[in-house]
Amino acid sequence: MTFTVNQEIAQFQGKLAKLSHESTSTKTKMDVNVFLPAVALKSDVSNGSIPVLLYLSGLTCTPNNASEKSFFQYFANKYGFAIVFPDTSPRGANIAGEDDSWDFGTGAGFYVDATAKPWSEHYNMYSYVHFELLDALSTQYPQLALKDNISITGHSMGGYGALAGFFKNPGKYKSVSAFAPISNPSNCPWGEKCFGNYLGTDNKDAWLEYDPTHLVKSYKGDASDILIHQGAQDGFYYKDHQLQPENFVQAAKDAGYKGEVDLRVVDGYDHSYFFISSFVEDHAKHHAKYLGL
Amino acid sequence: MTFTVNQEIAQFQGKLAKLSHESTSTKTKMDVNVFLPAVALKSDVSNGSIPVLLYLSGLTCTPNNASEKSFFQYFANKYGFAIVFPDTSPRGANIAGEDDSWDFGTGAGFYVDATAKPWSEHYNMYSYVHFELLDALSTQYPQLALKDNISITGHSMGGYGALAGFFKNPGKYKSVSAFAPISNPSNCPWGEKCFGNYLGTDNKDAWLEYDPTHLVKSYKGDASDILIHQGAQDGFYYKDHQLQPENFVQAAKDAGYKGEVDLRVVDGYDHSYFFISSFVEDHAKHHAKYLGL
Repeated sequence: MTFTVNQEIAQFQGKLAKLSHESTSTKTKMDVNVFLPAVALKSDVSNGSIPVLLYLSGLTCTPNNASEKSFFQYFANKYGFAIVFPDTSPRGANIAGEDDSWDFGTGAGFYVDATAKPWSEHYNMYSYVHFELLDALSTQYPQLALKDNISITGHSMGGYGALAGFFKNPGKYKSVSAFAPISNPSNCPWGEKCFGNYLGTDNKDAWLEYDPTHLVKSYKGDASDILIHQGAQDGFYYKDHQLQPENFVQAAKDAGYKGEVDLRVVDGYDHSYFFISSFVEDHAKHHAKYLGL
Repeated sequence: MTFTVNQEIAQFQGKLAKLSHESTSTKTKMDVNVFLPAVALKSDVSNGSIPVLLYLSGLTCTPNNASEKSFFQYFANKYGFAIVFPDTSPRGANIAGEDDSWDFGTGAGFYVDATAKPWSEHYNMYSYVHFELLDALSTQYPQLALKDNISITGHSMGGYGALAGFFKNPGKYKSVSAFAPISNPSNCPWGEKCFGNYLGTDNKDAWLEYDPTHLVKSYKGDASDILIHQGAQDGFYYKDHQLQPENFVQAAKDAGYKGEVDLRVVDGYDHSYFFISSFVEDHAKHHAKYLGL
């Protein structure tokens, strides 16, 4: 559970720590970046007092992409919450085929616990990001409220991961939001490829247990509002139909989800970090409300 | 003078345009990025109404680095000014030795008009950024006040370039600021290498005509306040003495420069884009005041 601190970088009046540790979930070394706002660095900060946002990245990303390009830290410092940026898969698991495509294997862990061989040995990103990592960080940064005042967001594959994590763990996350999430993964090429390999093609019921558009239907927990941004000129959205946020919105409506699902399809925007950084302010504000800031 | 628009990207409610054009100063194709705030995209925007900030980048950078990592655009949109991000040198001039080191030649034009061969044929970044580029953009974007309501800033080599451009052209720029500028280039290794090659080692008087610490001594123009940020943990500052902002501050004081030179040495910060993005808000505010915003 011990982290190696590879680098600490002053930024936005706070600090970005680049860490690595040996994960029991993935049985590999995992990198993670943590942003600590200025208020978390004060000498008299109380244990468990700093709210946390867990940010799950999209396909191909390391913890560094969002750290360098999302601009989330500026607003995190303003409101006073920390951000945890995990990696998107095990790396160096040495499984044949894991580096063959950009949308499966390395950089594409899809935030599931794999049940199909050979992936089940290492590709357990669901347990890693929602449980092991947060537990481990509680020791490293006791000032963070990782157990009881945490929200979740993410982009694309990470947006799906955030929504799935929220619905699968009632009460764990105070709020959820997403940027261009893969909203109905059991019903799109990216999801079919990853679920089929990690969970097996003969076990589609297991796929549904990670699909936000399915999970919302049986959700019984607290219903915070959900904020989703989607770029209208995002080719993965309007051309490839990988994202399908409308399916999720409709399912939430049909299920009578009590929170507001605020899907904002923004004209002109694409799928890039420029899209993310243009709207992090709205997401920071959204989560700050639920985190009591 | 015609630009090719390679890409337009929606961001921060405005738009980033990635352009290229054939430069008469460098006799090469030059790339430039321009951020247009939302107010510059309105159908009824008046010619020459949108103030401009010219941002000069540091060694090794292309127009994309600051576009992706500075987050200046967020504040530019908030205040309503455009940003021009030029490249840092000609590229592909095919001069022997131009790609041999990271701090000279390609990516290191040093914002001078070279007088020594073989560099003088292409390495004319002073004329390019302060004159040719701004003139050309006036045609491309008539709504921009490129001739009469423009300020200048930059990082490292670009911070030096901003200060030199301000002092060499009284009245051209409303205000100047810099992030970790090479403040006394005739007196540090980076400057000695570039000035020596571009201007000749036997012509040190010519070096002084680009050195802010020298130029401020004879400056007779309007004296706006000058904002400079410097990271205290920047190795180029405290170890290598490449930056020496104190030399500039002392020279301005000795010369009786009428504006305030506000040098903020910030504890913990390094030389990276994380340092820049942490303080762009202060610089945007500084320039907005002089740009009448």
